Amino acid sequence: ADIEAGKAKAAVCAACHGADGISMIPMYPNLKGQKAQYVEKQLKAFKDGSRADAIMAPMAAPLSDADIANLAAYYESLK
Amino acid sequence: ADIEAGKAKAAVCAACHGADGISMIPMYPNLKGQKAQYVEKQLKAFKDGSRADAIMAPMAAPLSDADIANLAAYYESLK
Repeated sequence: ADIEAGKAKAAVCAACHGADGISMIPMYPNLKGQKAQYVEKQLKAFKDGSRADAIMAPMAAPLSDADIANLAAYYESLK
Repeated sequence: ADIEAGKAKAAVCAACHGADGISMIPMYPNLKGQKAQYVEKQLKAFKDGSRADAIMAPMAAPLSDADIANLAAYYESLK
């Protein structure tokens, strides 16, 4: 996966999940250092609806598998 | 919430999520320092089935609201 591409793609995510992956909003999870396989599984679940979330569904909808892999690798890389 | 009670309750969770909240298994999320409100929302969703997961459903099923609040506070307290 391409961590730099993931970082660029994550600009949108930073609004809720924090520029450093620590969320400013108690209801939204921190993603800093989170397991890439877990993040990937959740983004795909939001995208196909097997995990229901009104906010995350439209966020995940436009993401390609490559975007998802890059985002997941980027967040895991944050130490 | 009672972080000590949460810690005791988390003995079961440590098998997958790690004794320090860092999972040894790539597919299972780290919980160390995770937002308590987020963890609480997810445990309740696993419990009522609004979030489907074959592994987490039986884990969440026996938890009371107090257990859930204590577990969530415990994991957020891990720095």
